[in-house]
Amino acid sequence: MGFDPDSLTYDGRGLIPAIAQDHATGEVLMLAWMNAESVRATLETARATYWSRSRNSLWVKGDTSGHVQRLVEMRIDCDRDAVLLLVEQVGPACHTMRKTCFYTGIRDGIEVELMAPEARSGSR
Amino acid sequence: MGFDPDSLTYDGRGLIPAIAQDHATGEVLMLAWMNAESVRATLETARATYWSRSRNSLWVKGDTSGHVQRLVEMRIDCDRDAVLLLVEQVGPACHTMRKTCFYTGIRDGIEVELMAPEARSGSR
Repeated sequence: MGFDPDSLTYDGRGLIPAIAQDHATGEVLMLAWMNAESVRATLETARATYWSRSRNSLWVKGDTSGHVQRLVEMRIDCDRDAVLLLVEQVGPACHTMRKTCFYTGIRDGIEVELMAPEARSGSR
Repeated sequence: MGFDPDSLTYDGRGLIPAIAQDHATGEVLMLAWMNAESVRATLETARATYWSRSRNSLWVKGDTSGHVQRLVEMRIDCDRDAVLLLVEQVGPACHTMRKTCFYTGIRDGIEVELMAPEARSGSR
């Protein structure tokens, strides 16, 4: 029997958190949100497709920046209320041009920046 | 200036999603929720401490199971509305006794189980 996106547990807004992880390096790239439609679109197109809470619309990651995420595999957690996307990330995942959105860390009680923005390349 | 947990962006329930990742293997273990108090407790005790939405109380991961998560580093994302915990995981992270909660994957449109429960050990 095929996987049914409606079998996942969405919150009151119809959304489920989605973690994107670089399938090759294991780096956690970002956390975004999906509704059932974006789960379906992600599986059908193999392009990470989120739900933009600010724009209230489907958001095909990389459509404007070129920094697409090709889906390698979608995983589901035990409570069916979170998904993990193993992806092939083109360019930086973060809109700040850093590889990952998780670029600050708390060290000895101080928040420090762990990586600088990447130089803009000509890729797309 | 020290890191202030109140500088994070919490949702309408006062919660922020927290991803736990094995710091050594890079495996994403689970997604849970934190409020400002649990962010503070996690940093102070170096033990992952979540907010249990079902019990409506602080949940020190592993307090009953022994499957604690020692905090190696907390990271913050660009929007300050998600945190990433790099942890040292003792035993399986999942209550189903699997290493990670993300133990099913969608392959060729079918949801398949990717790992079996671990045998219960005597470790604590």
